[in-house]
Amino acid sequence: MSIPTDIDTPEILVDVDVLDRNIERMAHAVQAKGLALRPHAKTHKIPEVAARQLAAGAAGLTVATIGEGEVFAAGGVDNIFIAYPLWLSVQKVERLRRLAETAVISVGVDSAAGAAMLGKSLGAAASDITVLVEIDSGHHRSGVLPEAAATVARAAAGAGLRVGGVFTFPGHSYAPGMPAEAAAQEQAALKEAAGVLAGAGFETAVRSGGSTPTALLTQGSAATEVRPGVYVFGDAQQFELGRCALEDIALTVAATVVSHHGTPAGTPARFILDAGSKILGSDRPFWATGYGRLIDHADARITALSEHHATVEWNDGAPPPPLGTRLRVIPNHVCLAVNLVDEVAVVRQGRLVDRWTVAARGKNK
Amino acid sequence: MSIPTDIDTPEILVDVDVLDRNIERMAHAVQAKGLALRPHAKTHKIPEVAARQLAAGAAGLTVATIGEGEVFAAGGVDNIFIAYPLWLSVQKVERLRRLAETAVISVGVDSAAGAAMLGKSLGAAASDITVLVEIDSGHHRSGVLPEAAATVARAAAGAGLRVGGVFTFPGHSYAPGMPAEAAAQEQAALKEAAGVLAGAGFETAVRSGGSTPTALLTQGSAATEVRPGVYVFGDAQQFELGRCALEDIALTVAATVVSHHGTPAGTPARFILDAGSKILGSDRPFWATGYGRLIDHADARITALSEHHATVEWNDGAPPPPLGTRLRVIPNHVCLAVNLVDEVAVVRQGRLVDRWTVAARGKNK
Repeated sequence: MSIPTDIDTPEILVDVDVLDRNIERMAHAVQAKGLALRPHAKTHKIPEVAARQLAAGAAGLTVATIGEGEVFAAGGVDNIFIAYPLWLSVQKVERLRRLAETAVISVGVDSAAGAAMLGKSLGAAASDITVLVEIDSGHHRSGVLPEAAATVARAAAGAGLRVGGVFTFPGHSYAPGMPAEAAAQEQAALKEAAGVLAGAGFETAVRSGGSTPTALLTQGSAATEVRPGVYVFGDAQQFELGRCALEDIALTVAATVVSHHGTPAGTPARFILDAGSKILGSDRPFWATGYGRLIDHADARITALSEHHATVEWNDGAPPPPLGTRLRVIPNHVCLAVNLVDEVAVVRQGRLVDRWTVAARGKNK
Repeated sequence: MSIPTDIDTPEILVDVDVLDRNIERMAHAVQAKGLALRPHAKTHKIPEVAARQLAAGAAGLTVATIGEGEVFAAGGVDNIFIAYPLWLSVQKVERLRRLAETAVISVGVDSAAGAAMLGKSLGAAASDITVLVEIDSGHHRSGVLPEAAATVARAAAGAGLRVGGVFTFPGHSYAPGMPAEAAAQEQAALKEAAGVLAGAGFETAVRSGGSTPTALLTQGSAATEVRPGVYVFGDAQQFELGRCALEDIALTVAATVVSHHGTPAGTPARFILDAGSKILGSDRPFWATGYGRLIDHADARITALSEHHATVEWNDGAPPPPLGTRLRVIPNHVCLAVNLVDEVAVVRQGRLVDRWTVAARGKNK
């Protein structure tokens, strides 16, 4: 795809045909496994993308914050899971109550103290909220071990909340060779935790897992739903992990070559693109080959990133592109890139066809 | 400073007393050296902060993009340097022309082709724009070697642009032990490049250098002005480089402990804060001790960062803070943190006194 002439750089482009194909493919694959799909909307933060996911059969959305939930509920989404162990400030109590009046809301909990606080803060509104107990399946971030699930559930029920089941995020799947192992741990943890909850007399109708790397490895016996996010756009991390192909990349950053840098004879040419960390994001896991990839130049590497400069090392053999050349960059972690812009340019077959507002950008609270 | 009770988390706090002291201190130190101060506004992107810098004697502002220039010019700033080798798209040509009608504008160039393109694109408006030739003083990003300065200047003059001098960014100063060496290289490069330009009959009235690590090491003989940015707020990078003290940190992110994580006996406790990479930014240079610092807990380390989770390793000896505790985090790289929010909370002696809009947030073009 060439960059439309009416696009200035740097700018985020979303190829809507690729996006739709990604959405359909995940929807069908998950449906074929008998699982529900509840995509994580923190990746895109865009109501138009959420609408496409729901039209393709998603059972609801996942979000990370009350603020993201507010944006999507205002856009008509009526079933939202806040996959986060909320600790409610006075401001958040009121907002969560109001949100629960407009949509079916479930929330993560991962401690007895957190569950008690959530229920007590909400008062009579607690019975409107379903909680899912967060399980640590090996990522070692938030979540409790499966054997502790009943303790958290008891505190939640004691505080007037409905217990709906368990969830986990296998974040350790984002590393080379890890998706299969992480998916197996995820399934084992969900199964064990659900057993613990059921043994204590609790509901386990929801057993939710699934990152983009593990969603298609998830088995229906342990889980009931998956929550992948990145699959809609793909990114350089997923590509380098082998979880998407180049033709599945729906989001790129249009950039211009603004500077050439002399290099010693026999070393790769270097040049600067006008897309830096303020549009690409600066996540770089240790195993990544650089700070993003050039979609049309497999051998180029982004070896350094400043706020408005990407330093490209050109290993292409051919002479480097002249100043003014426009190239497309795949961000390492697409969730961060989208969160840096107010809108994205929607393109189809190389033409600008629409602009979508990133309505939930910056909704950290 | 405690976190005001009317602040929800995560939220960026700016302590205005510390901010004002930082602004005054840099203004006086630079003035005492006989240098002009042209602060880089990409750090704060806030007109109220720019107004304070100008009131303290700044000669004008530095920005990275035309969009940042537009915001500050609209706020009444009348002298702006775009420290970037712009390659003008059709959209940018018109915007730069209009900007030059409202403020005195100078722009970076670092190639003969770029200078020729800039002058040709601007047409008659070229004579309204002063260019400074960017010199590579060791950072090896953009910029030419000092001996090539005259070639770029000739192309600029030939294209109708005014040549005003030279500038450099010693970005390699952002590493342990590097500020003094980088400052020396910066001075040598500015001096040599100015000599080359003068020898070719060009103006060298502006010889501009100075990052926050090197600004106070800059000597008046080689440079005429410095362009530090981060000094207004400070950040964990500058603190760990020894370029600011904890009491100079004017910007922190208020966060809440939302989850505790069990750890094996004898290992540090771990907990999760609700401030992740979507408010702290995810820059982490290899020499940093973590993804930011806790301002009141010198021994704690942020060992992992997700979009909405910071994993804190608690090496304090004392028991970890209970769920719901509010703590302040110093971002590693403050320029990225500010760019993630629509407004900052302005505090004085622990009270919320104002909110400032981050008016130039996201102005990447």
